[in-house]
Amino acid sequence: MGDLHNARRGRLTALLAGHDVDALLVTRLVNVRYLTGLASSNAALLVRADGPAVLATDARYAGIAAAVSPDLELVVDRRTAQALTELAADGGVRRLGFEAHDVTVEKHAELAALDRGVELPPLGRLVETLRTVKDEEELALLREACAITDRAFEEILPMVRPGVTEREIAVTLERRMVDFGAERPAFESIIASGPHGAIPHHRPGERALEAGDLVTMDFGALYGGYHADMTRTVAVGRVAGWQREIYELVRRAQQAAVDAARPGAETKAVDAAARDLIKEAGHGDDFPHGLGHGVGLEIHEAPLMGYDKTGKLMDRVPVTAEPGVYLAGRGGVRIEDTLVVRADGPELLTTTTKELLVL
Amino acid sequence: MGDLHNARRGRLTALLAGHDVDALLVTRLVNVRYLTGLASSNAALLVRADGPAVLATDARYAGIAAAVSPDLELVVDRRTAQALTELAADGGVRRLGFEAHDVTVEKHAELAALDRGVELPPLGRLVETLRTVKDEEELALLREACAITDRAFEEILPMVRPGVTEREIAVTLERRMVDFGAERPAFESIIASGPHGAIPHHRPGERALEAGDLVTMDFGALYGGYHADMTRTVAVGRVAGWQREIYELVRRAQQAAVDAARPGAETKAVDAAARDLIKEAGHGDDFPHGLGHGVGLEIHEAPLMGYDKTGKLMDRVPVTAEPGVYLAGRGGVRIEDTLVVRADGPELLTTTTKELLVL
Repeated sequence: MGDLHNARRGRLTALLAGHDVDALLVTRLVNVRYLTGLASSNAALLVRADGPAVLATDARYAGIAAAVSPDLELVVDRRTAQALTELAADGGVRRLGFEAHDVTVEKHAELAALDRGVELPPLGRLVETLRTVKDEEELALLREACAITDRAFEEILPMVRPGVTEREIAVTLERRMVDFGAERPAFESIIASGPHGAIPHHRPGERALEAGDLVTMDFGALYGGYHADMTRTVAVGRVAGWQREIYELVRRAQQAAVDAARPGAETKAVDAAARDLIKEAGHGDDFPHGLGHGVGLEIHEAPLMGYDKTGKLMDRVPVTAEPGVYLAGRGGVRIEDTLVVRADGPELLTTTTKELLVL
Repeated sequence: MGDLHNARRGRLTALLAGHDVDALLVTRLVNVRYLTGLASSNAALLVRADGPAVLATDARYAGIAAAVSPDLELVVDRRTAQALTELAADGGVRRLGFEAHDVTVEKHAELAALDRGVELPPLGRLVETLRTVKDEEELALLREACAITDRAFEEILPMVRPGVTEREIAVTLERRMVDFGAERPAFESIIASGPHGAIPHHRPGERALEAGDLVTMDFGALYGGYHADMTRTVAVGRVAGWQREIYELVRRAQQAAVDAARPGAETKAVDAAARDLIKEAGHGDDFPHGLGHGVGLEIHEAPLMGYDKTGKLMDRVPVTAEPGVYLAGRGGVRIEDTLVVRADGPELLTTTTKELLVL
C-alpha cells in the first residue's frame, strides 16, 4: 500500500505546482487517510512542493502510522497542525497553503499566532479533487461494499411483512451487512414505511408495517473505508394504482439518469434526465432534493449532482443516482444505485432488481 | 421537550449578555441539537440577545424541525448560516457572534462576503460550556446508555474464550447493545487481546484469543443521543504474575480517580490521583494518555482530564475515568467507568464489576 499512497501524494505535488505555495498542510482527516492510509482522529500531513511529505499524529496512533506508512517521516505530537507548521518554517517553507474548508477560524488563529514567518494562503479542495476519480484499488473496495449491500437486502426481504417495525428491519439489515464483512453501516439506515415514506430522511422508528404500505429502504455497507449507498422501495401485500404509478415514474427517471451518466456529461444534465421526466408527470415539486452524489471515503463527496450544481462527470467516478417522489401524508418512492461512470457505459455496483417487489 | 430546549436557550441568552454581541449564530450541529432537539446534518440557529431564536434547516428536515421545535420560527433554506446571517442583518443585528471553533475559514469568508453590514466577532465555546453541566433529562438518557452497556458486557462474557476473534466479540457486543435499545454503538469498539492490549486504540481484528491473554474491551451504547463509555480488561484462562500486578495497579489508580472526582476538584488533580500511583509503581511512561473526558451528546466533550489540562469539575458533570498501563509487545490493562460528579460523591453509571475476571 505504500506505493499506492506515494503515487497519490505525487499527484498532489503535481497539483501544487499550479498554486503559489511551497507546501500544503493537509488537516482534513479523510484526506490524510487518502494520502497515507492512516485512519486516525488526530493527524495532519505536510506535503512539500519539493521534498518528502511528513505525517504527524499523536502517541495513540504512532504505531499504526509507522505500520501503514513506513516510508513517511513521522512526527509524534498531539498538536499535529502546529507541529507541522513549525517544521515547515524550520525547513524554509515561506508560503504554506491550508485547507480553508477544514481549518476553523479558531485553528487558523492558533497557526498564525505561532508567528514563525510563514504565510498561510487558503487553498481549496485540492485533495478532494484528486479523490473524485478513483484508482482501481478504491473501486475494488467500493464494489465489495456494494456487493455486501445487495446481499444483505436479499437476505432481509422475507422479514418485510405486516407487523414488523421499521427499526427491526434497520437493525437486521445492519447486522447482516456486518455478518457479510462490512466494518459497519455506511450511514444511518433509512427505513420509511407507509406515510413515513414521504419523509426523505426518515429515521426508522416503532411503526409496524401494514398491508398496502410502500417501504423505502436506504442503506449501505462500509468496507475498507468505502461507502455503498442503495435505496429500494417495495410494496407490502398489495399495490394501489397511485403507488404503482409513482413507482414506475421514479424507476424510469432513475434509469434515465443512469443512462445519462457518461464521462463529460454535465452533472446538472444528469439530474435533468431524471427530473424532467418527473416534472412532465406533474411531480416536479415532489422531488425536492438533488439526483445524487459521489461516494468514496465519504458517503457524500464530489461530484454533487443537482439542478443547481456545476461540473462534469469523468471516467472512474462513482456516484449515486437517487430520484424520488414524496407525497405528504401518503408515502413515497426512491430508487438509488451506486454506479461508476465509465467510458463504455455506467458500471452498476448495486445490482438488486428494480422491479417493484410486492412482499 | 419544547420547554426543555427553551430553558437551554434562555441560559444561552443570559450567557450572551457577557459578550459584546447582539446575537449568536450557532452552527455546530450538536449545539443546534442541544438547543432545539433537532438532529440534522444541515441546520443552524440564530439566538438573539433580545428576541426569539430562529432555526434554519433544509427541506429534508423541515418536517422534523417543526415537530421537535414547534415554538421556534423556522427558515427552510439549504444555505442555513447565510440565510440566518441575512435575517439577522434585516432584523437590525449589528454584531453577530459566531462559533470560531466550528466555522471554517472558507465559510467565514462566505458570510463576510454577504456584505450586509454585520460584524462577525468570533466567540468561543459558549454552548459547550452550557452543555458541560447536564440537566436531569440528559443524565437519565446517559444512565440508560450505561445500563445498556453494562448489560451487553454481561451477556457476551461466555463467548470470551480461546479461539474467538476480537472482531467476533466486537460485533456481538454491538448487536447486544442494539438489542437492548441502543441507537447504535457510541463509538468504534476496541477489543484488544494479548499483545494488542498494548495499543490503546487498537481496532478489533482477526486475532483469535489465546489462553493467557489479557483482553481489553472499550465500548459503549448511544441512547437518545447520549454516549456511554466503559472499558474492562479480563483474563482468558489463566493470569500471569505481571498481568495481575498491572491489573491491580490500574484498578487502584482508577478507584483513586473516581474518589477524587468531586465538585470543585481541579481536573489535573483527578488525573494526578490515578497517575501518581502509576508513576510510583514505575509505570509512568506506560500511561501515555489523559485520565478521561466529559461525555454527553459527544463521546469526547468538556471537561478533558489530563496532567496538562486546566479547569474544575462541577456538580452534574458526567466524565470517564480510564487510566491504563500498556506494555509494548506484551499487553495492557485499562479500566474505565462513566460517572457523574455529584456533591454527595460520584454516581457510577457503569456498574460492571472491576474484580479481575478470569474467563
